[in-house]
Amino acid sequence: MNKEMNLSVDKKYEKILASVKEELSCSAHDIDHIFRVYNLGMLIAKSEKQVDMDVLISAILLHDIARVKEDRDITGSIDHAVLGSEMADSILSGLGYEKDTIEEIKHCIISHRYRSNSKPRTIEAKILFDADKLDGIGAIGIVRSFMMSAQYGSKLYEDISQHKQTEVNLTELSEPKNRLKHPPNIEFEVKFKKIPESLYTKKAKAIAEERKKYMESFFERLREEVKGLR
Amino acid sequence: MNKEMNLSVDKKYEKILASVKEELSCSAHDIDHIFRVYNLGMLIAKSEKQVDMDVLISAILLHDIARVKEDRDITGSIDHAVLGSEMADSILSGLGYEKDTIEEIKHCIISHRYRSNSKPRTIEAKILFDADKLDGIGAIGIVRSFMMSAQYGSKLYEDISQHKQTEVNLTELSEPKNRLKHPPNIEFEVKFKKIPESLYTKKAKAIAEERKKYMESFFERLREEVKGLR
Repeated sequence: MNKEMNLSVDKKYEKILASVKEELSCSAHDIDHIFRVYNLGMLIAKSEKQVDMDVLISAILLHDIARVKEDRDITGSIDHAVLGSEMADSILSGLGYEKDTIEEIKHCIISHRYRSNSKPRTIEAKILFDADKLDGIGAIGIVRSFMMSAQYGSKLYEDISQHKQTEVNLTELSEPKNRLKHPPNIEFEVKFKKIPESLYTKKAKAIAEERKKYMESFFERLREEVKGLR
Repeated sequence: MNKEMNLSVDKKYEKILASVKEELSCSAHDIDHIFRVYNLGMLIAKSEKQVDMDVLISAILLHDIARVKEDRDITGSIDHAVLGSEMADSILSGLGYEKDTIEEIKHCIISHRYRSNSKPRTIEAKILFDADKLDGIGAIGIVRSFMMSAQYGSKLYEDISQHKQTEVNLTELSEPKNRLKHPPNIEFEVKFKKIPESLYTKKAKAIAEERKKYMESFFERLREEVKGLR
């Protein structure tokens, strides 16, 4: 279907993807994120039993379809997981998906974000959740957080010691309103390093631990370079 | 003088720095770049003999003073190395620097960029050139190039195989007008990996080789993550 995806897949996915491409445009959550989550989802699925691949693939392709709508919503009332599942319902019905399958896919989409009230309960929802979070850490996580901080005008590095004086500071930093004003090395301390423990599948947890360690070593190296130590 | 700089230095440098801070504002060439080049310059200077530290430090602090003026010049006629050396002349004269010392500092500033007609001929000019180029590679180079590509709206990764078909393509990519439309992994192939051989001092060449290898491994890891291989 697509050079970014390693599997040859059904024609109906082409149609889903066309709808998704139409909706997405901002750089951090663009269509390449969908392809990376797809590749990770396939990797995790190999280590799990009884995965409904049709549910998983459809949910991966559609999970961020309302992302740009949420980003552009000045009222702050749009939740892309909720709106996305409604948009998915309409697209999948049009493609002749069974009602039960649509419900499974909608559950994956609704429960894929941290702040959702609905937690993933099926294996497909857990795989989507995990693959989506993995795309925020590792070398990809480093790159995405620096690209975002460039857009928000944050510095490229700040001494962690200036922020670590009290635990309260770190808690404050993790609040959404304070996010991204700080450079990625601080974001790592308050957010990224906690990702592995938040995941569901064994395979994703292992990948996340390794990616976390890589980020940690990257930020230590960055500190040394900033200080002229190497 | 400043927490970002490890040495305690002369009061006159405070005055130079105040003028520099007034001139700089864009994120990639901001005042933190000056501090990093200072730290690297001090590291390189330790391995060299007969370095005039007053010339070196003054030149480091002033080398990008006209950077924002060049960036904002829509006619494209401003060369920040040339204009910077003129601005430096005026600032240093006001601070009572000797005429000979000012000429040494101006030479460092004029010759610090790749495209300059004047190549570094003194050890201080070579150290500034090398330290400035080192700040574009390694973990810092990765971070700076992704922050710039976010501002230019490039993708975070593209398959190198799509670009490597002919050597002509890589040459075209390295032309200034085509720069930064391509993601950092492509910029690495056409530009960053050639930096070590362009440097003058032995110490900087060694640091550059190690930083180049680190970038290479980062982009290989990024490729593997994008493809869902790890």
